[in-house]
Amino acid sequence: MKSFISVAPNSDFPIQNLPYGVFSIGAEETRHIGVAIGDQILNLAEIATLFDGPELKSHQDVFRQTTLNAFMSLPRPAWLEARTKIQQLLSDNCGILRDDATLRKRAFVAQSDATMHLPAQIGDYTDFYSSIHHATNVGIMFRGKENALMPNWKWLPVGYHGRASSVVVSGTDLKRPLGQTKAPEGKRSLHFLNKEMTFSADVPSFGPSKLMDFELEMAFFVGGPENKLGTRVPIEKTEDRIFGVVLMNDWSARDIQAWEYVPLGPFLAKSFSTTISPWIVSIEALRPYFVENPTQDPTPPEYLRHDDPFTLDINLAVTIRPEGDTEDHVVCKTNFKHLYWTLKQQLAHHTVNGCNLRAGDLLGSGTVSGPEEGAYGSMLELSWRGAKEIPVGNEVRKFLKDGDEVNLSGVCDKNGVRIGFGQCRGKLRPADI
Amino acid sequence: MKSFISVAPNSDFPIQNLPYGVFSIGAEETRHIGVAIGDQILNLAEIATLFDGPELKSHQDVFRQTTLNAFMSLPRPAWLEARTKIQQLLSDNCGILRDDATLRKRAFVAQSDATMHLPAQIGDYTDFYSSIHHATNVGIMFRGKENALMPNWKWLPVGYHGRASSVVVSGTDLKRPLGQTKAPEGKRSLHFLNKEMTFSADVPSFGPSKLMDFELEMAFFVGGPENKLGTRVPIEKTEDRIFGVVLMNDWSARDIQAWEYVPLGPFLAKSFSTTISPWIVSIEALRPYFVENPTQDPTPPEYLRHDDPFTLDINLAVTIRPEGDTEDHVVCKTNFKHLYWTLKQQLAHHTVNGCNLRAGDLLGSGTVSGPEEGAYGSMLELSWRGAKEIPVGNEVRKFLKDGDEVNLSGVCDKNGVRIGFGQCRGKLRPADI
Repeated sequence: MKSFISVAPNSDFPIQNLPYGVFSIGAEETRHIGVAIGDQILNLAEIATLFDGPELKSHQDVFRQTTLNAFMSLPRPAWLEARTKIQQLLSDNCGILRDDATLRKRAFVAQSDATMHLPAQIGDYTDFYSSIHHATNVGIMFRGKENALMPNWKWLPVGYHGRASSVVVSGTDLKRPLGQTKAPEGKRSLHFLNKEMTFSADVPSFGPSKLMDFELEMAFFVGGPENKLGTRVPIEKTEDRIFGVVLMNDWSARDIQAWEYVPLGPFLAKSFSTTISPWIVSIEALRPYFVENPTQDPTPPEYLRHDDPFTLDINLAVTIRPEGDTEDHVVCKTNFKHLYWTLKQQLAHHTVNGCNLRAGDLLGSGTVSGPEEGAYGSMLELSWRGAKEIPVGNEVRKFLKDGDEVNLSGVCDKNGVRIGFGQCRGKLRPADI
Repeated sequence: MKSFISVAPNSDFPIQNLPYGVFSIGAEETRHIGVAIGDQILNLAEIATLFDGPELKSHQDVFRQTTLNAFMSLPRPAWLEARTKIQQLLSDNCGILRDDATLRKRAFVAQSDATMHLPAQIGDYTDFYSSIHHATNVGIMFRGKENALMPNWKWLPVGYHGRASSVVVSGTDLKRPLGQTKAPEGKRSLHFLNKEMTFSADVPSFGPSKLMDFELEMAFFVGGPENKLGTRVPIEKTEDRIFGVVLMNDWSARDIQAWEYVPLGPFLAKSFSTTISPWIVSIEALRPYFVENPTQDPTPPEYLRHDDPFTLDINLAVTIRPEGDTEDHVVCKTNFKHLYWTLKQQLAHHTVNGCNLRAGDLLGSGTVSGPEEGAYGSMLELSWRGAKEIPVGNEVRKFLKDGDEVNLSGVCDKNGVRIGFGQCRGKLRPADI
């Protein structure tokens, strides 16, 4: 299948992808819902009346909103109908848009002329911890090899509530956060210490975080009608609630985290910024890239069991561009298929207690690390808690420096069709002191 | 000061209180903003044009909304102006409402004819852990006397992100949640065990929680213009962001919590329901009840220091009414003044990393326990983890039974003026199996 819009071979957005996003044009404030195709955006508000199928003809207004929440909250058949229609309208053998120069002029915007915004109002943001390699690495560093994985880890997808207000879209700079830090006592502190640090073991210090990190994650947006509080989404029905997937950088201040997180979990170490990519790639677009799920031993409880492949083969990479550099330097290459728990299992678990999930909720995967050293999804793991230096162009890093710009990328490639996730970029600015 | 509306001596809502809430009338769907006075509600939409002072005359629309978010997001002087105006309009020496029978008929609704709703759209909900007696009790039970308080506890107000979507208003029933549970190994398991349990130490079980609990908390709603992501609210400015206070029952499934919460904190053990009282009592109404702050040793870091009294003397109680009983039976009496960290300190800490707080965000205190046994704010503490039985009318409890209706109450009483928080009630229904 080809589009009449020309799409470069290395583009993330061929006609097989068609991710949804929210954009504004130039200096205008008004936001629109669009679909990426090549280097263009198709403005769905301008073609809303063309959605005349049984699911959408009475809901064309969802395409005239300033967030995707209303569209996402429709049942899954509406998402499928929209995708089919958009794919048809963009294909090279359909004249409706192709041959209507006036409509085309109104409906297409160059991505270079657009500013991207958060695609949805995020009601609640949850972050899981579903990569076994990441959980094992962190466990070894903080608890030793024998107790690397907590006893609950293989029985349920461990997760926690995150901060929704501080989720930002790719391209938003962030400031190094201030906070309390304290060196752990005893020999554990050695790995944390380096020359610049002024940690004392007795009293916490206050100041800018000294151990800034990224976390390579993906996240999915919940869609479909809300499950009423007190009702669960059985695993067989979870696909009706998984709208699409984005890249996510769960920026972390490791020293703030180490001091604050026992016993109630990470808090200010995360809530200063979480960056997502602006384009939501739908499950339908990702369907060709599902592969067999990892073997789970022990077998999880029945409410978490499913056999259909729902593990995504997505090549992931992290780059760092130091201040003044003109290139992104790869520091991590891994794959989303290393996730132990599937998105379906995460959603079934999240609702098993009756918790209501609403369209626009964001569920993160947790840091995605692969089994090898170069496949670790955080500086904490790559530098093994500061024990080694990672080359970044002409420089080296243990953690992030002010001015570092981090980007995540994700690409699916199979049978000659390549779809991607666009950018998930953020630059670390110095702390406000 | 007296109102021309007659107020019973034991009413929570004399003219000195004037809490804000959102209600609908009879079977109507439309929601209105109102203020409680005696057993009546003053519908602010009906008198919006009377708010003609400098702060509000161009913002009268905030009183015609279906949530309080817009009003709360105005700067604090607008809240003060609204309170002064409402107090004037309701006082027995002002004729504007008193002498206008037609307007009075439109503007007043009997509380018995109204249904209360969540007062605001809650963007993010955070729960702190600020009662030293509660944290110590839990610490002793789970870690022993020597390590009762974690090393960070006295240096910062420990808190975590909660689930916003499952916050419900008083009167909403809840279902006993399903989830995974597992008895801890070794002798710790003994206190958890009782006859009905089928825990195994090797493999987790799945089913309805067997250790259902309430948590007596209060929570405050954030107000004022949002601090932009990356900027903090200094402790001297925190009062501009504290709109008002409600009661909160942070229902907890202790067995689910014990199995899931390490290392990332409570998740499904809480996110099935959190009940708040419908009426937000403003800081201005609470001002006469501020008392000296508790001594903090060690002195916290500078960003958390303030000398002005911001500790609230509020008498709190928890009652349980078993199924079929006609009375509420008190199981806990305590006081909000036992909180170690003030609301100002919680807010300053929450934003010190640049986290943006938005009007409508809800910040919980954590379980409020007093120093004596009868003053513990949860069944976990009252029954000392199931080691003793608590009398509830003709019955006894270690944890909650299906059909138990829990209510929280809060009352300030000083110099002959008594204001209260209304009800915070919820009934535990059996699990869906």
